[in-house]
Amino acid sequence: MAKNEVFQYSLVSALMDGVATHGTPISRVLDHGDHGLGTFKSMNGEMIVLDGVCYQMKSDGTIEHIHTPSEVITPFATVTRFNPNVSTRATISNKKDLPALLLKLFPQSKNHFLAIRMDGTFKRIKVRTAGGQCFPREGMLAVAGRQTTNTFEAVKGTIIGFRCPAYVMGLNVAGDHLHFIDEERQKGGHILEFETEGDVEVGVSLMSKFHLEVPTEDEEFNEASLAHDKDGIEKVEG
Amino acid sequence: MAKNEVFQYSLVSALMDGVATHGTPISRVLDHGDHGLGTFKSMNGEMIVLDGVCYQMKSDGTIEHIHTPSEVITPFATVTRFNPNVSTRATISNKKDLPALLLKLFPQSKNHFLAIRMDGTFKRIKVRTAGGQCFPREGMLAVAGRQTTNTFEAVKGTIIGFRCPAYVMGLNVAGDHLHFIDEERQKGGHILEFETEGDVEVGVSLMSKFHLEVPTEDEEFNEASLAHDKDGIEKVEG
Repeated sequence: MAKNEVFQYSLVSALMDGVATHGTPISRVLDHGDHGLGTFKSMNGEMIVLDGVCYQMKSDGTIEHIHTPSEVITPFATVTRFNPNVSTRATISNKKDLPALLLKLFPQSKNHFLAIRMDGTFKRIKVRTAGGQCFPREGMLAVAGRQTTNTFEAVKGTIIGFRCPAYVMGLNVAGDHLHFIDEERQKGGHILEFETEGDVEVGVSLMSKFHLEVPTEDEEFNEASLAHDKDGIEKVEG
Repeated sequence: MAKNEVFQYSLVSALMDGVATHGTPISRVLDHGDHGLGTFKSMNGEMIVLDGVCYQMKSDGTIEHIHTPSEVITPFATVTRFNPNVSTRATISNKKDLPALLLKLFPQSKNHFLAIRMDGTFKRIKVRTAGGQCFPREGMLAVAGRQTTNTFEAVKGTIIGFRCPAYVMGLNVAGDHLHFIDEERQKGGHILEFETEGDVEVGVSLMSKFHLEVPTEDEEFNEASLAHDKDGIEKVEG
């Protein structure tokens, strides 16, 4: 796959319906991109793909470097071969300010995908990590209801994520979806809130090609309703 | 692109918003598939791609074989390199009976894409052809409000189309979307109703990979709302 194209395996709406027992090997995901996010079998933890390396950030606070990506599966992931069109420095005092910054960098981008990377020191980052399903087909809303949250202060690290256009809501998450990992690869998670400590480096690429692959021969996927649950997805991924 | 993968340029919701002035060359679409449908600049007519040849079916009843596909653009098209997983013969007495036939052929397919081809004699086929926008950004509902309809009886020809899963509504048309062209390549259009004359040949492939490309540097696309107008799309494409 060329640079700055989106590859996605399965659907956020499938996670909402608890489709997380089977999946595709992480190695296949890494074949399509070096930057991204996702989750693991049974929604056990948050995935971050940084410079081509995949990490599993677990709800017990530990992080596992996935050394054998062909042996670990993911039921949902989004990646790109990241090559920022724009690199800048910016201070962001609230996650809610990110859309305005992205609009300034790419004024005509509301109907396109953006890949985002931020490196630097963060004054405060609040993350959550999903602890996994209690049983097969347990939906993401229930899983997220048991999520662990952590707040890190004055932490150096990297934010990786995407801004998806509204029309892919259900397939993915419309709006910003960001994961964080610290410089020592010791802590991180799905970002709920963040604030930078002064300027951080910001790289963004605009993408117009979206490659979606959905599960095959997967009873959970085949039987899922995959309804357009905008409110539920915003609640759990917003 | 491999066989039985979907390639789509732009979005049905973009057509709904009247995004039809610019597009991609038909030759690029044909690079990705030999079987499909779409429309032309300014929504002037219905596109059918049959055995790798692209035809423009116009509202005046004429059909143009696109001999120079690099010089003609499309603002929306969906194609695949068709290689049917299942080939059978079937009698279909109503377009509404097609979903039941497809479900019988592929019992676990409701969350996947299907490509469909039917060859034979049709007792009755009712088609519409869109006559094009009166001005740039005129939406598809208004364009379809002026569509020409035609009914053909005892006509030999081919139906080409797709069955898309519900979760792509807006990106494409959820459900069946079929175009027809007769054996002499003299008449055809977007199918509203059909009935076979006894058995016809039916080929169907199940697809799990969807490659979407959206317009870039296209002000109409960038500014479109691309709202999730399920009711509108069902009215105009159902």
